Amino acid sequence: MSRKTILVINCGSSSLKYQLCLMPDGTNLVKGNVERIGDARAFMTQKRVSDNKEYRVDSVDNEMKDHKSAFKEVMKAILSPDYGVLKDAGEIDIVSHRIVHGGEKYSDAAIVDEKVLADITELCDLAPLHNPAHLQGIFAAEELLPKIPQTVTFDTAFHQTMPDYCYRYAIPEDLYKKFALRKYGFHGTSHKYVAEHLARIINKPLESLNLITCHLGNGASVTAIQNGKSYDTSMGVTPLEGLVMGTRCGDIDPTVVPYLCSKGYKPEEINTILQKKSGLLGLSGKGSDMRDIIASAEAGEENGLLAFNSFIHRVKKYIGAYTAELGRVDALIFTGGIGENSYKVRAAICANMESIGIKIDLDENKKHIGTEGLLSKPDSSVSVFVIPTNEEYQIAMDGYRITHS
Amino acid sequence: MSRKTILVINCGSSSLKYQLCLMPDGTNLVKGNVERIGDARAFMTQKRVSDNKEYRVDSVDNEMKDHKSAFKEVMKAILSPDYGVLKDAGEIDIVSHRIVHGGEKYSDAAIVDEKVLADITELCDLAPLHNPAHLQGIFAAEELLPKIPQTVTFDTAFHQTMPDYCYRYAIPEDLYKKFALRKYGFHGTSHKYVAEHLARIINKPLESLNLITCHLGNGASVTAIQNGKSYDTSMGVTPLEGLVMGTRCGDIDPTVVPYLCSKGYKPEEINTILQKKSGLLGLSGKGSDMRDIIASAEAGEENGLLAFNSFIHRVKKYIGAYTAELGRVDALIFTGGIGENSYKVRAAICANMESIGIKIDLDENKKHIGTEGLLSKPDSSVSVFVIPTNEEYQIAMDGYRITHS
Repeated sequence: MSRKTILVINCGSSSLKYQLCLMPDGTNLVKGNVERIGDARAFMTQKRVSDNKEYRVDSVDNEMKDHKSAFKEVMKAILSPDYGVLKDAGEIDIVSHRIVHGGEKYSDAAIVDEKVLADITELCDLAPLHNPAHLQGIFAAEELLPKIPQTVTFDTAFHQTMPDYCYRYAIPEDLYKKFALRKYGFHGTSHKYVAEHLARIINKPLESLNLITCHLGNGASVTAIQNGKSYDTSMGVTPLEGLVMGTRCGDIDPTVVPYLCSKGYKPEEINTILQKKSGLLGLSGKGSDMRDIIASAEAGEENGLLAFNSFIHRVKKYIGAYTAELGRVDALIFTGGIGENSYKVRAAICANMESIGIKIDLDENKKHIGTEGLLSKPDSSVSVFVIPTNEEYQIAMDGYRITHS
Repeated sequence: MSRKTILVINCGSSSLKYQLCLMPDGTNLVKGNVERIGDARAFMTQKRVSDNKEYRVDSVDNEMKDHKSAFKEVMKAILSPDYGVLKDAGEIDIVSHRIVHGGEKYSDAAIVDEKVLADITELCDLAPLHNPAHLQGIFAAEELLPKIPQTVTFDTAFHQTMPDYCYRYAIPEDLYKKFALRKYGFHGTSHKYVAEHLARIINKPLESLNLITCHLGNGASVTAIQNGKSYDTSMGVTPLEGLVMGTRCGDIDPTVVPYLCSKGYKPEEINTILQKKSGLLGLSGKGSDMRDIIASAEAGEENGLLAFNSFIHRVKKYIGAYTAELGRVDALIFTGGIGENSYKVRAAICANMESIGIKIDLDENKKHIGTEGLLSKPDSSVSVFVIPTNEEYQIAMDGYRITHS
């Protein structure tokens, strides 16, 4: 297969992350990030992989006022003779975008066309913070790189294999039919990446494996994978459900919302509280970063300890729940910023889990901070792994695969 | 200890259930029920245990217009020379009430006094459908049986031993402090009864046992019991959270509520949908009774099968989650209308659960419909039991115990 140069784009409402990759081998040429798009303090940073050469440009005259102008800065940086990696924009073969919400329509990546754009637009309703920003990224790429094919990889796609009794909420069927209210799940690109990577490193067919994958970062989710396919996952119609996250509450009694409405809170205000002021931040009252929470807990601060214990407890619950669902679990995988780097979090999650077949080797566990490895003891019936995620690789690989098929 | 005659009262918003028990032996003299209180079609039924003599009276001139007048009918029936069991109201030693919500203040039953009444009144806010009705029952008893001590047993009391990381939601601390929004758990009387009963029949101290108790009825909850104490439970600040129930949704992405608000639904309307039109009813579109759901699933109806599978799946999740939380599980106990009577539900829940130590004997399981028994195979590391619940006994026992201490 021929080698292709793929620009991977991940647009948030005020950010644009990018990487340039050579596929199918996965070589990464450059990675960068534009932050605070639309703000007078917008800036971009880029790092060239070959020599670690870094570049930063700060907004002077609001020249990163929207995603299109941010994209222009990205192209300038990629093409710069000093710190860039390409001579001509025409060397880019494919632009591949991360899209949060693909609803029920996408169980795989897709090549961007009118229908795909219309579908992403329609799904803005379910992902109001994300899908509109992704569209801005696609429009900017269409304008600045008009002849280059674009692909989209959906965070939800991997989870489209869930059976109905896992994805349906026990609410009236007409609310499901009218508003598409069901569990979609997110972080699918990451869960899929680590599952496929594990199958490669243990040299077994993915279709033969039952896995529990824990993507633990500022956003966090657990997925039960049966015979290589997503069977259940902790996030729901939105990324709010499930685990205790940096600022998101995860599972709560849904009555909390109408109860607070009866006390004078507005539904939108409650939504903001549950999304932005809850989770580790809400419990600790201090921060949303797990490193700060651990420091606070270790300093004996009660709220820090509560936040830490609540996070751990919720992950344990999901691992147990998915063990019961899957019947047999071949491996438990940790990934994401916290999962890859915090051996303390991994140790706490795996403590006292022998009854569900998990025995972790605490020394091995301590050795792996950001590196791949096997963490379980030889007699653990569930193998425990840490595998750094690589969503950009997965998105580039999707782009490569579907434009070649 | 002397024998006492205890009238157990369980008031709903339009119902009054009662039993007369002799304690401490637990002999039941009579049980009855007033339904549709306040409605022109109100009626009461009573059954005398000694000879199964039944009695029914239908409202003619709205004489069961409120809880007080319903209580008068109850006293008439108990004292009737034809179908009653007592000669004089003075033979009643204690009136013991079931109270749904005791908040954070009650970890045990209590003797009714001004403070207890004030606390139950304050908690009406968290249990608007239940606590006001319970107060009506207490006021009626005070008026009609003025010299007799009254006690209250709270559904929430047993769960007050949960650690903070189990009962706190990951929402801002000030919402917890201001509105007491946390997990309380319910069905505590039932979970406690079956746990204590199990300890008696296997002749082990309750304090040595780790148990998972499944109370499966029209309302349903699962409790993790560690060393005899409630450690975690599936219901939350209200009885809406957790399992799929007859008409309640259980766990959903909390975003569903603000999302529906943005579509023009009112918070109260959504609350009603989630409480009264969801669960098995919402999924099946047909009914909330598990017997109808099983019939529908067996007839090959897709929605019936979805409702059945969703119910089973959710219980499995909680059993797995609590196995991970407890580390070691000595026994799994089924109780409640569905748990006691539906061997099909029990078999489906326990299917393919060997990885968490559960092996059910399908023949033994089939034999127990409403009767106590051991359902697991000899090599099951978790013993599985069915134990018919007896909340009235527990409430009467509480009344007996605390008035003697």
